[in-house]
Amino acid sequence: MYSHTLLKPDGRQLTLYSRYPIASNLQATSPSNEPVQANPHLRWHPLRGEWVAYASHRQGRTFMPPPEYNPLAPTKDPQFPTELPQGEYDVAVFDNRFPSMAVTAQDPPVSIVETMPANGACEVVVFTQDPHASLSSLKLDHLDLLLQVWGDRTRVLGGNPKIQYVLPFENKGVEVGVTLHHPHGQIYAYPFVPPVPAKMLEQQRQFYQQQGRSLLEDLIQKEIADNKRILYRDEEAIAFVPVCARYPYEVWIAPIKAVGHFYDLSAKQRQGLARALKTVTLKYDGLWNRPFPYLMAWFGAPTDGEAHPEAHLHAQFYPPYRTSERLKYLAGTELAAGMFANDALPEEKARELQAVLVNFETPVPL
Amino acid sequence: MYSHTLLKPDGRQLTLYSRYPIASNLQATSPSNEPVQANPHLRWHPLRGEWVAYASHRQGRTFMPPPEYNPLAPTKDPQFPTELPQGEYDVAVFDNRFPSMAVTAQDPPVSIVETMPANGACEVVVFTQDPHASLSSLKLDHLDLLLQVWGDRTRVLGGNPKIQYVLPFENKGVEVGVTLHHPHGQIYAYPFVPPVPAKMLEQQRQFYQQQGRSLLEDLIQKEIADNKRILYRDEEAIAFVPVCARYPYEVWIAPIKAVGHFYDLSAKQRQGLARALKTVTLKYDGLWNRPFPYLMAWFGAPTDGEAHPEAHLHAQFYPPYRTSERLKYLAGTELAAGMFANDALPEEKARELQAVLVNFETPVPL
Repeated sequence: MYSHTLLKPDGRQLTLYSRYPIASNLQATSPSNEPVQANPHLRWHPLRGEWVAYASHRQGRTFMPPPEYNPLAPTKDPQFPTELPQGEYDVAVFDNRFPSMAVTAQDPPVSIVETMPANGACEVVVFTQDPHASLSSLKLDHLDLLLQVWGDRTRVLGGNPKIQYVLPFENKGVEVGVTLHHPHGQIYAYPFVPPVPAKMLEQQRQFYQQQGRSLLEDLIQKEIADNKRILYRDEEAIAFVPVCARYPYEVWIAPIKAVGHFYDLSAKQRQGLARALKTVTLKYDGLWNRPFPYLMAWFGAPTDGEAHPEAHLHAQFYPPYRTSERLKYLAGTELAAGMFANDALPEEKARELQAVLVNFETPVPL
Repeated sequence: MYSHTLLKPDGRQLTLYSRYPIASNLQATSPSNEPVQANPHLRWHPLRGEWVAYASHRQGRTFMPPPEYNPLAPTKDPQFPTELPQGEYDVAVFDNRFPSMAVTAQDPPVSIVETMPANGACEVVVFTQDPHASLSSLKLDHLDLLLQVWGDRTRVLGGNPKIQYVLPFENKGVEVGVTLHHPHGQIYAYPFVPPVPAKMLEQQRQFYQQQGRSLLEDLIQKEIADNKRILYRDEEAIAFVPVCARYPYEVWIAPIKAVGHFYDLSAKQRQGLARALKTVTLKYDGLWNRPFPYLMAWFGAPTDGEAHPEAHLHAQFYPPYRTSERLKYLAGTELAAGMFANDALPEEKARELQAVLVNFETPVPL
């Protein structure tokens, strides 16, 4: 993996990644040259015992780009610079222009609840220069590179002593509120371990202390023995609809053996995960022959400087559909009580996805 | 409050509630006479440490009602019975025909994770016979009755030793997936205290043990002193945008003094809550002069037979909009990490709602 870090005219960082050497003369661009002055803060929610982030951003000069303007594509017309420069690279990562967290934030407002600066980071990860691609259409070595990029970002962001947890995710599709269709994800880096990973790590820690091994490894072995919900499996990696799926088409991807961070994966494990990632996203897109929306999140170990032998890196996909025509709305029992309720069994949804035949060479529905 | 319980032809229960005596000759109806045979089960999610509910329902004979058929209105044409009989009553509660939980459920499937019967209950609460009403348009004594109905259902459902927690809620608007617009809510009764109330009760319990009073009472006193986000206040009840709002237009309604259950409220407290409820929903509908969607949930004490001096009954409203034209989609940081991020401050959103003048006599936008 090659990488090259540049500074945008507004002070934000841009890192280009490639399978091949990157030219040294690339210039970072930005839709706006006004310095980004984000100062988000956190407030303590006493009843839920969690932090909530607030960031009010003032938009500067009105920017009126032509209709075909794509801020995530390489800049074509220097009059309308995008977030990315022209040139040869595969993946690009840059600071979000309107971040919910920033390591430079300071002086949070005084309030009736505890407050603190939202000293985290919000990055955008552009998966490819091709605006019509998707994880399902990218080549395996490109996906392999993306796994390395997530590893590099975890190392860089997590290396800041303020950052305790790094979460790469992708929101995909208008159904989950995405308006920019150029293939991209985001990385949120938190100054604490957020509630959901914290709860999962606590469950894993308890199991590890009692059994001396990974809770997810244990579940994966049971999924393999049960053999009802598996979508992909090789020696190193697996993808399956979990027995306890909360979303009808929920899928998890994981290395079969516990690994804490992307950067701890062996080359063989990465290749397995890349094949699993391509298989799952191809099955999703093939299910109804149209792009399949989802939220994909990767849960690894915290970057809090502690050892986390209990942590087991894996992805969870949360698709918003329950049938081809019906969305699963999160409502009373999910959002207010925290108990998910489904009217289809994970085994039935797994069978639907198992029935989608996948060919790595077939073009992907656009 | 008057009430009258009937049995539907398919075995489900119906209870009618009214401010006035109810005729004894009403007959319970049902869109279908086939017995309801729900057998939902729960599976343990080992990574999140929570239960997930599964219910597969087979639909019986196809039911082809006329287009104007409204299953939640009183039956007009006996050929097409609805869920409710003709006659005089204000509020009706009946068992959901496709429940996610049922006290009669048994024999859960054997699985690679722990399972158990989903021994809870799912009820539908029809707020009024008027299909065009809403909480904002109902009279104060009708809202007072509704608060008593929620109390009666908590007592009846919570009286079953299998039930540990009773959650009344309303999903309102197509934006949160509601297809039936007749004003109604639901009640979910759980065989355990679900994760969100469990976490909030744990926070309240810790505070109560240290300080000897209600955590929410403490926050309410601070909100009153701060005086920035209050929407309604009288001697007994308050409504405010909480300082730690997770949704842009989030509002809480509570009695100022801690009360565990609806049925523990004094008449004056109920009247205050009814006025708060009407004020908040009128402000919501008045904000953009159109019906305002939301999820409203009421959190009280568990019904687990223990004393819960820490519990403080209150409602939380989660509206899906962040501006009049933009939805707040729950995505990576909210759903995968559990940290909510907002680009507006609760103080700003409170000012918008404070500016909506409310007159209890003005007709409500339809």
